[in-house]
Amino acid sequence: MNITEKLIKSHLVSGEMIPGKEIAIKIDQTLTQDSTGTMAYLQFEAIGIPRVKTEKSVAYIDHNTLQTGFENADDHKYIQTVAKKHGIYFSKPGNGICHQVHLERFGKPGKTLLGSDSHTPTGGGIGMLAIGAGGLDVAVAMGGGAYYLAMPRVCRVVLTGKLSPWVTAKDVILEVLRRLSVKGGVGKVMEYAGEGVKTLSVPQRATITNMGAELGATTSVFPSDEVTKAFLKAQGREEDWVELKADDDAIYDEEITIALDEIEPLVACPHSPDNIKKVSEIKDLAVDQVAIGSCTNSSYTDMMTVAALLKGKTVDPNVSLVIAPGSKQVMNMLAANGALADIISAGARILECGCGPCIGMGQAPATNAVSLRTINRNFEGRSGTKSAQVYIVSPETAVASALTGKLTDPHTLGEAPVIPMPEEFMVNDNLIIPPAPEGECVKVVRGPNIQPFPKNTKVPKEIKGGALIKVDDNITTDHIMPSNAKLLPFRSNVPYLADYCLTPCDPEFPARAKKAGGGFIIAGQNYGQGSSREHAALAPLQLGVKAVIAKSFARIHMANLINNGILPLVFVNEWDYDNIKVGDEFVIKYAADQIKGAAQGQIVNVTCVKTGEEIPTRLNISERQRDILLAGGLLNYTKESN
Amino acid sequence: MNITEKLIKSHLVSGEMIPGKEIAIKIDQTLTQDSTGTMAYLQFEAIGIPRVKTEKSVAYIDHNTLQTGFENADDHKYIQTVAKKHGIYFSKPGNGICHQVHLERFGKPGKTLLGSDSHTPTGGGIGMLAIGAGGLDVAVAMGGGAYYLAMPRVCRVVLTGKLSPWVTAKDVILEVLRRLSVKGGVGKVMEYAGEGVKTLSVPQRATITNMGAELGATTSVFPSDEVTKAFLKAQGREEDWVELKADDDAIYDEEITIALDEIEPLVACPHSPDNIKKVSEIKDLAVDQVAIGSCTNSSYTDMMTVAALLKGKTVDPNVSLVIAPGSKQVMNMLAANGALADIISAGARILECGCGPCIGMGQAPATNAVSLRTINRNFEGRSGTKSAQVYIVSPETAVASALTGKLTDPHTLGEAPVIPMPEEFMVNDNLIIPPAPEGECVKVVRGPNIQPFPKNTKVPKEIKGGALIKVDDNITTDHIMPSNAKLLPFRSNVPYLADYCLTPCDPEFPARAKKAGGGFIIAGQNYGQGSSREHAALAPLQLGVKAVIAKSFARIHMANLINNGILPLVFVNEWDYDNIKVGDEFVIKYAADQIKGAAQGQIVNVTCVKTGEEIPTRLNISERQRDILLAGGLLNYTKESN
Repeated sequence: MNITEKLIKSHLVSGEMIPGKEIAIKIDQTLTQDSTGTMAYLQFEAIGIPRVKTEKSVAYIDHNTLQTGFENADDHKYIQTVAKKHGIYFSKPGNGICHQVHLERFGKPGKTLLGSDSHTPTGGGIGMLAIGAGGLDVAVAMGGGAYYLAMPRVCRVVLTGKLSPWVTAKDVILEVLRRLSVKGGVGKVMEYAGEGVKTLSVPQRATITNMGAELGATTSVFPSDEVTKAFLKAQGREEDWVELKADDDAIYDEEITIALDEIEPLVACPHSPDNIKKVSEIKDLAVDQVAIGSCTNSSYTDMMTVAALLKGKTVDPNVSLVIAPGSKQVMNMLAANGALADIISAGARILECGCGPCIGMGQAPATNAVSLRTINRNFEGRSGTKSAQVYIVSPETAVASALTGKLTDPHTLGEAPVIPMPEEFMVNDNLIIPPAPEGECVKVVRGPNIQPFPKNTKVPKEIKGGALIKVDDNITTDHIMPSNAKLLPFRSNVPYLADYCLTPCDPEFPARAKKAGGGFIIAGQNYGQGSSREHAALAPLQLGVKAVIAKSFARIHMANLINNGILPLVFVNEWDYDNIKVGDEFVIKYAADQIKGAAQGQIVNVTCVKTGEEIPTRLNISERQRDILLAGGLLNYTKESN
Repeated sequence: MNITEKLIKSHLVSGEMIPGKEIAIKIDQTLTQDSTGTMAYLQFEAIGIPRVKTEKSVAYIDHNTLQTGFENADDHKYIQTVAKKHGIYFSKPGNGICHQVHLERFGKPGKTLLGSDSHTPTGGGIGMLAIGAGGLDVAVAMGGGAYYLAMPRVCRVVLTGKLSPWVTAKDVILEVLRRLSVKGGVGKVMEYAGEGVKTLSVPQRATITNMGAELGATTSVFPSDEVTKAFLKAQGREEDWVELKADDDAIYDEEITIALDEIEPLVACPHSPDNIKKVSEIKDLAVDQVAIGSCTNSSYTDMMTVAALLKGKTVDPNVSLVIAPGSKQVMNMLAANGALADIISAGARILECGCGPCIGMGQAPATNAVSLRTINRNFEGRSGTKSAQVYIVSPETAVASALTGKLTDPHTLGEAPVIPMPEEFMVNDNLIIPPAPEGECVKVVRGPNIQPFPKNTKVPKEIKGGALIKVDDNITTDHIMPSNAKLLPFRSNVPYLADYCLTPCDPEFPARAKKAGGGFIIAGQNYGQGSSREHAALAPLQLGVKAVIAKSFARIHMANLINNGILPLVFVNEWDYDNIKVGDEFVIKYAADQIKGAAQGQIVNVTCVKTGEEIPTRLNISERQRDILLAGGLLNYTKESN
């Protein structure tokens, strides 16, 4: 067996390990960040289990740390108290980015980790099966429920040779993205192998598994070896180490080979992480901003490299260099050993440990500015500035460019510094608050930003409603539930967010839906592509949406609709889309019976109230999903099952 | 002569030094911060002088540093380029708070400093005559124009004895506020004297002069002595020192005495800086947040004290401790000597050097939270959270409380640390960009957040318009031009801000004013009290407001109205206020003649168009202000005078 199969087999609860088939796995650890965490904990509370059943669950605060209104601090306080009550460790704001801290302090080779953040696969850097999922899935896992997914195909990525000076782990994953594209990992686990593996440190491996998310992969995983052991030992956690390697005769579904020594410094150009060029190919690109940090490149060794390169130099007068170390541990070590002084002295702006610029929470560039960032995603507008041109680079390229004021190959800096892994990290977990002992009474604090989220009900006899909106192909979850610095603080307040639902398509939609008391969304191809955010299902549910009828759905959004009891119906005849007008009234008769039939491949008929005509649709669901829909969503289903 | 008289006399351009009489003084240095600076530079450009005529003008970026949209970075780029072009030094974002950096690197005893920030009097800590003013006043000063003010009364503050351990400069100024109240300094300069002066370091003196602003004082000033000399020497600027002391027979208008050794740790309770209690009087006040920083208490010695008190300890689990060092110099020294590591290790969140929490740009507390801060103002809602309870304390009290989780007298910490002033500060001005050499061509970059500001025109023959809104007594500039984390990024975009003008009183006002093409504001007593923001005049001007007719005006807002060519008319008969209805049309006939007469004490008649009735009003203006109004504002007046 390969590593992926070993990890899955040892956690398999149900299903067959046949690629594409639904399997269920036991979850050992969970993590949440705050922008998704509030909802995950509200959902966990709704399930009604008093204490988490995982081996370790950790709630991090790293997204909403700017606090431009009361909302963020309200969310922090809610998460802190709900975590304390239910057996969850709480990582205070300032302690760092969930993935970085989890790697340092909690991750264990051989374990499964489910996180309500798409970059949870970072944990694959130490041999975890670490998967990003929606908050509700994490809530269910905290309650002891299994996590359901399609058995992935396994792609072996053979690393040969070793990296040349100035070439980094970031360049490795950019090379993988160049070859496979942002869709290249869909339905797969990227399993790293080959002699090159042992030349990579844990932080380097984690950079690679982190950005496996950009391939669309289910997750990525490295073996757990002596390098892993040394890392855990330096974190004072040698006992958490187990070896994990593929059998010599392991079989893979696919294989690619990356010759580490052939890679050059690469850059992902606007506006996609797979729009890759060599740094040396791009001439005279003046740079306005350089941002170093994010869960991809904010480790101790990344920052020590940055400090070594900045020492005694000065940032270009026209560049704003911002640096956010990934964790308190990293920042503390840099402050103690003088490296932070070198960084500050050179003219860098030091931001609080957290996600910050990567998620558009602060440091939005100027209009039309060029921003080089060590982050993982450079989607248009994600920086907070629609017209900004964001390029993804390694920390080395970032520093070289910050010093010259234009995109610069780090080779021009001379001899590359050698930064050894520390034999001992500075361990001080005083910003991690353990939960209360079982039985202790804890009051959960709910400020006005903590609002009840919408809950669906058992499927009614008939589902009735009008066509509330009709949208084109390729509607993203950013259209459905916009996310930006103004709205991100309201993730625990679905009633508020719902007023922005689908407004990029039609500003009147929320008001219309409320007035009508709910109804149907009519959509084209690939509805719900992009980010996995659950709020793209919760906001429509809040507005009373009962079904989305589309030409096709993006996979994760379809799962989120089902989890919230909204029917994702697919037109059998695409021309029916053309005939529907906003305001047309529909009814799905014998709804429960039709849903049951749908799970066996039968048509679901949507009847036009005015003409009596029937529009045939399909519901592509498993038997489990059928039961979820009948129950009115995963929450009700889980409560019924307990 | 006292120090104040010496400073004024050596800079007097016109007028007699009789308290209350208008005088004009030459300005040696100016400073701006970014939230007021964009407008000051737009105004400077409008005046049309190619290069500043001051000895030193510096543009700081310290307010709008969160960058949650493109606006902040657009403003930074505009300020950087306009500064470079016109002979102004530019302090990049990350270099720190204007007052802290100016003290470190530019301030000179014996000089005058005009700054577009109300805490400019910080410079009085090294014997400057440092005054806060509107952006337009600063623009005029940069162009070589004099600054006009009423000759202040001078209050001698005699300091006796020396501070006990754990008692700080913050407690001194809180004691002054307790005695005199937030109105106690109006029309005065607070001049510190007595044997206690020499026991206070420059940062301590600057804490005291900084918060003189809270007394409503014109400014505060300390002598320039050996302590000042040592500070400047440690900054590598010994040559900038001159001695400055009052003559032995100097006469003062008032005098108070503060016995330093009798002061205890004090706290300003919500919601006013003069709501003073002893820390020891308040029992069991649980604290949610502690914020250390701001231009009042972010110096090297403040932060070293904080580090010494935090070393080896841990912040209470229920407290969020946020620390923003005041400047890059401070942060760099802390990072180099290990103090920052002690601070981080204890669990503090480190924010970028800047104003941050003090101005509500980030770190808004949770709903109903108690926040202890070392800042200068605790007005309701200023923290970004309307329901938060903000207490002002010294850094020592702040740390003691952060460790226990409740308001705590620092005496409980045992022996007070002794932090010596450094003999040499770490001087590295690489974030201060000098202007281009004279004659060099510089392109000023104007992103879409840099919008033209409204300009008035010469007073017309007749001033016509309707009553657009009628408001009650005590309308503040916060009502007229709301300022918060959402609106502060738009200070360079008056057309955008104008849509929020007076909306706390009437959300329809901006639309109504635009539709009517402008008109009159009708107001009660004390119209325009509160912050001195110029935008409370610019936004009405943008909407076409020609005059405000009120029962009475706050002094600074009245000056801002005049500076923008808007008539501040005062009802002769208050009952006329009662008879006016929104929509009534008025005309001021022979406007120029009536304004000329008003400067000599004559009535200005406002005629009701419908009834022909005349409403008598007064315009309380000097001859200079008469000429400003006739020219259509200070900008036109200045251009005409050049």
